[in-house]
Amino acid sequence: MNNTISIARRAITSIKTHCHIKKGFNITSNVGIRKFSISSCRNMKFVQFIYNEKPNDIRVGYLDGDNVVDINKADSNLPSNLLDILKNGDVEKVKRLKSSNPASVPLSSIKLAAPIHGNDKVLCVGLNYKDHCEEQKLTPPEVPMIFSKFASTIIGQKDAVKLRTDVTDKVDWEVELTVVIGKKASNVKSANAFDYVFGYTVAQDISARDWQKTRNGGQFLLGKSMDTFCPIGPCITTSDEIGDSQNLTIKCSVNGVQKQSSNTNQLVHKIENVIERLSSVMTLLPGDIILTGTPGGVGMYRSPPEYLKPGDLIQSEIQNIGVLETRVEKF
Amino acid sequence: MNNTISIARRAITSIKTHCHIKKGFNITSNVGIRKFSISSCRNMKFVQFIYNEKPNDIRVGYLDGDNVVDINKADSNLPSNLLDILKNGDVEKVKRLKSSNPASVPLSSIKLAAPIHGNDKVLCVGLNYKDHCEEQKLTPPEVPMIFSKFASTIIGQKDAVKLRTDVTDKVDWEVELTVVIGKKASNVKSANAFDYVFGYTVAQDISARDWQKTRNGGQFLLGKSMDTFCPIGPCITTSDEIGDSQNLTIKCSVNGVQKQSSNTNQLVHKIENVIERLSSVMTLLPGDIILTGTPGGVGMYRSPPEYLKPGDLIQSEIQNIGVLETRVEKF
Repeated sequence: MNNTISIARRAITSIKTHCHIKKGFNITSNVGIRKFSISSCRNMKFVQFIYNEKPNDIRVGYLDGDNVVDINKADSNLPSNLLDILKNGDVEKVKRLKSSNPASVPLSSIKLAAPIHGNDKVLCVGLNYKDHCEEQKLTPPEVPMIFSKFASTIIGQKDAVKLRTDVTDKVDWEVELTVVIGKKASNVKSANAFDYVFGYTVAQDISARDWQKTRNGGQFLLGKSMDTFCPIGPCITTSDEIGDSQNLTIKCSVNGVQKQSSNTNQLVHKIENVIERLSSVMTLLPGDIILTGTPGGVGMYRSPPEYLKPGDLIQSEIQNIGVLETRVEKF
Repeated sequence: MNNTISIARRAITSIKTHCHIKKGFNITSNVGIRKFSISSCRNMKFVQFIYNEKPNDIRVGYLDGDNVVDINKADSNLPSNLLDILKNGDVEKVKRLKSSNPASVPLSSIKLAAPIHGNDKVLCVGLNYKDHCEEQKLTPPEVPMIFSKFASTIIGQKDAVKLRTDVTDKVDWEVELTVVIGKKASNVKSANAFDYVFGYTVAQDISARDWQKTRNGGQFLLGKSMDTFCPIGPCITTSDEIGDSQNLTIKCSVNGVQKQSSNTNQLVHKIENVIERLSSVMTLLPGDIILTGTPGGVGMYRSPPEYLKPGDLIQSEIQNIGVLETRVEKF
């Protein structure tokens, strides 16, 4: 019990640690000045959460120090979930709401949920860190290799990753920087790609390696889309607050032992190029998420291989976002 | 214009042709008596449609001869889309509604839409007809090979299949019997699988062969999930009305020339086994659809290969459901 409280405290501290970033800056990169056209969301970290007494009612809010502002409670004309805020283009209204200093509730009084849900697409890039390719003795692919999960696999902070131990004992961790699309994107060029990014979160791309590699004719889908295999959170840091999203430390530990440690500057296919490629074949929609790939250090390629088991604690951290924590349970 | 009217008439006739099936029967098969536990949907064909004056308002109804009953208009307590009817378990109420002979509108006064939308999963079985394996010189896989499309790719009767001619000139047709899941299914055994099937529709599993096979590292997703690549319709025939879903003629023609002709009794992996396997790794949800695979005769394996081009008319017919018609356009 003490351990649980300590983990909860660390998670809250971790969110708070990354809340104090200076306002209104632009970042020069190899695609020019990155600016998110919805300037209204500057310096906000979005979360979704539930009140303990209403576990089925997911609410959207933003962090305000140690507190959360319930957006729909502060202005009942605004949606109660993030997907509808993005679809309706209501981010500007949320900014106005913020400037009125609405009432908030302590973070300790609510439970965080996945920061977005109900979206159309969970897209994932395979083999997108050089060291993850090397540990598999593979050359990085010339173009991003894309697979998917179903949106129903999304879970949130402190939710349980459930192992179907009757069908697999080869379930692995993967921490990934995750892009949240802010508006419809079709045929977008890389130079403009960041105009369509609302923000970033952390994902654990949980993977049943046997089903991914050999038990479904080589198609990754089933190994990647078991129930609960897409934890995301703890919050979405907006594009203008993240800093350079492609220069962030990224880590993953299991039961407190560090397994993955890298930097998003090691991405083989950069975010802007992934968005260009994806939007050349499909329309990206508000709320769609893109898991950008995982660095080396996954369980399958350790010697001997290591896999998740019930009781394990997975902690995945990305700079300027926070620590996403899940606990493994039997399905 | 005359051609358009004639196509519209043929489509309506095609739906009507399959409307007159005898009531309340059970079908004995190798998994015993198939019965759909929601007995209330007996002898109904569900559609979704729009009134011409309200193109963004998709409504759910059922066919009544040459007419459609708008379920929500007949009883405002019932949802206006099929997904919510399934999620809420409202099929029983629709049955009661039917027995009160509510008002209906002529089929000719509305436009059919995809019979379900907004669902979590579009699952597809690859290489599931023997002749389709043979035309590729492949042995049928020992287990069903599963891939997916995004739900946003779903379009309906007479909608346009849009070709992104700037990125592919290898887009192919595939007619598929499509299962519509009626209620949550996790760890279902094949003997009970049909209890979870609400009904059946026709799908065209439109496929950009270059992206499917070679341009995405062997993962089918991008080649299968371009916008508009999942036409379904024209209606959903409920399980108790379909007859034996695994003994139905299945056909596809392009511009009036027959390209595919088979019977669903040629499925390599039977529907009940596909449901058992899928539900062993993920929870199937109400409204999820499963495209069960396509017979031989696709364009890629013709000599010389044939691909779709703007202007082409695709007509896909399955016995006891109807003819799904789409027209190819440039994106």
